[in-house]
Amino acid sequence: MDRFEPNLRIPGPTALPPSVRVAGGRQMINHRGPEFAAMLERILTGMKPYFGTSSDVAILTAAGSGGLEAAIVNVLSPGDRVLGVSIGSFGDRFAKIAGIFGADVTKVDAEWGYAAVAEEIRERLRAMPDARAVLLTHNETSTGVMNPIADLAAAVREEAPEALILVDSVSALGAVPFEMDAWGVDVVVTGSQKAWMAAPGLAMVAASPRAWAAMERATMPRFYLDLRAHRDSAASGQTPFTPAVAVAYQVDEGLRLMDQEGADAVFARHEACAAATRAGLVALGFELFADPRHASRTVTAAVVPEGLDWKAFNGEVKRSGVVLAGGQGKLAGKVFRVGHLGSVTLEEILGAFSTLEIASINAGRTVEPGAAVAAAQAAGLASYGIGARASAGMPA
Amino acid sequence: MDRFEPNLRIPGPTALPPSVRVAGGRQMINHRGPEFAAMLERILTGMKPYFGTSSDVAILTAAGSGGLEAAIVNVLSPGDRVLGVSIGSFGDRFAKIAGIFGADVTKVDAEWGYAAVAEEIRERLRAMPDARAVLLTHNETSTGVMNPIADLAAAVREEAPEALILVDSVSALGAVPFEMDAWGVDVVVTGSQKAWMAAPGLAMVAASPRAWAAMERATMPRFYLDLRAHRDSAASGQTPFTPAVAVAYQVDEGLRLMDQEGADAVFARHEACAAATRAGLVALGFELFADPRHASRTVTAAVVPEGLDWKAFNGEVKRSGVVLAGGQGKLAGKVFRVGHLGSVTLEEILGAFSTLEIASINAGRTVEPGAAVAAAQAAGLASYGIGARASAGMPA
Repeated sequence: MDRFEPNLRIPGPTALPPSVRVAGGRQMINHRGPEFAAMLERILTGMKPYFGTSSDVAILTAAGSGGLEAAIVNVLSPGDRVLGVSIGSFGDRFAKIAGIFGADVTKVDAEWGYAAVAEEIRERLRAMPDARAVLLTHNETSTGVMNPIADLAAAVREEAPEALILVDSVSALGAVPFEMDAWGVDVVVTGSQKAWMAAPGLAMVAASPRAWAAMERATMPRFYLDLRAHRDSAASGQTPFTPAVAVAYQVDEGLRLMDQEGADAVFARHEACAAATRAGLVALGFELFADPRHASRTVTAAVVPEGLDWKAFNGEVKRSGVVLAGGQGKLAGKVFRVGHLGSVTLEEILGAFSTLEIASINAGRTVEPGAAVAAAQAAGLASYGIGARASAGMPA
Repeated sequence: MDRFEPNLRIPGPTALPPSVRVAGGRQMINHRGPEFAAMLERILTGMKPYFGTSSDVAILTAAGSGGLEAAIVNVLSPGDRVLGVSIGSFGDRFAKIAGIFGADVTKVDAEWGYAAVAEEIRERLRAMPDARAVLLTHNETSTGVMNPIADLAAAVREEAPEALILVDSVSALGAVPFEMDAWGVDVVVTGSQKAWMAAPGLAMVAASPRAWAAMERATMPRFYLDLRAHRDSAASGQTPFTPAVAVAYQVDEGLRLMDQEGADAVFARHEACAAATRAGLVALGFELFADPRHASRTVTAAVVPEGLDWKAFNGEVKRSGVVLAGGQGKLAGKVFRVGHLGSVTLEEILGAFSTLEIASINAGRTVEPGAAVAAAQAAGLASYGIGARASAGMPA
């Protein structure tokens, strides 16, 4: 294992590109000086197109869950009626936070593995004319399901025009298109260790003008996660509290790499890696957990089959250098997950399938040697629009 | 400036030693895997002697101020009576957080530049028989004053045995001795970018058995900063939310360097650098801001003298590679601060004084060339017990 870098196929933290690692090893600077101010400005401005907003973004030194708490406590007051739409572990968490801070939360739960249904949200909202907010998960990391946020947001906007829409996009934003302003979404949260090619430690939160206005009235207690303090400090190139400077170096470099590649190419790469992962898993005989209509483009969950000694299998996979994620919450032991986000390449996915294929054969599963990597490769290329006989070169 | 590393003389983030920078550039790992678990255990265990506790420590992905909020919201309930002892900006902040979360805060304010007085705390507590907590600042970063926590805690313990003692030691712990258990202190907060030789992003919080018990009854809302969730996850080698892994690498390496040097040597080095800084500033004709009886061993504030164009002076100092901190809050423009904590060496302090001396001479101040660096050197060595004619070698 020490001879090579592990193929880190968990849904975050993701593997860091070489230049991002160099950024993480940089010397400290004064976080109240001009060099930090310029970097903060680059990050806050550079993030906006990925959020799809012209509104202000805040950067918090916190895990994604700290960002979710920020989304709740900044715009809501105790007693506010909130619809918590959950399709898995992280949807449950989002609703739980709102409850802890005193919101009156109604939950609507999809069966795990499925996306939320706009019609169900409409129905619930009809019975909640005073709903102050709707909580949505963009990408449910625990199940590998990606919600159709545009559709769900449109349903909320129609049924409850006054309700704020808060979206957990921790493990999706930056990897897939998002149009916060166009979709009428009010608060969006993401995290540095997901699509952004950086280490964990920073949560980025964007808020619509409506959300910024709501903060003036919201009374849930907040200090460390107060977004207005962040916006005010950002105006003078600072954060209100000492930020995770080294992680900011990395996000800055990650954004540079993403912009160099181009957002559309980044999105296409994620789509291709997701398609490859699904095809490879199916070729290995695994059942995909997520409804294929809403399969995530950043993480794929597969069912641990009857008869497979998962611990032994995963142990061998790990010794071979591929790090998978287990199931979370009630899916512990029932599914495993393959992360394909951040700097991930099709080559890394194929490398992982080489290992998974060998481990599957060693575990006595019926697998035609080469079939899984071939299936993954074909699906990845097909996602790029490159067929078997295409004369076009590899995608840039 | 690009030819050399700046001499970062701000009170955090502090300059990173080479091996800590390398640690910051390491590749990501699974934060739910055995390698992370071993590192977390090393950090949590390795921190305890510096806290002076055998009780549990939690590590939060947050700035020091997030740690202060954690101290408050985990052990208190809205309506609890709290005595907020403030000697500067950060004491004000600590009290403010308690108020925001609904505590009934009485403040006792020392004149800035002075330490808190035990007798004054006793008096206030006599009038507050139901005091639930006392908030103390160990090192007030804004004024360069270090409170005598042992004495203040003893006064609280005698006068209000039931009151919890919460201590902000963000910019002191690790640099000076601390005996949480022996002194009867209940919650202590520190931050990775101060004495610990690491980048910002992690706050470490230790709680006494009494404080852990108080968490079972405390009703202030908390989720992201819930210390019990951290303690429970730590039992299985994890954090409840994705931690700032790269900063943890650095804290792990910083702790290794500190243990290699030896805690007593670390403390002696800080004392020597503080003594050198004070002597150098005085030799340059600056008035020290802090009461000399309680001068901080991690940061020194000096008064900006009448007639000195601070902006021009500081600009020249900065162009020469020395980064100072300005005044904070109501001291903005009135003092400047020199940080001397973390991996700081006497040589770095002397280097800074070389620059400050040249800038002072260029600014037309009456300074005998060489006097300030000589005074700083002599004071530093005297702090180590090495006189002018001592035959002993340099301190190890």
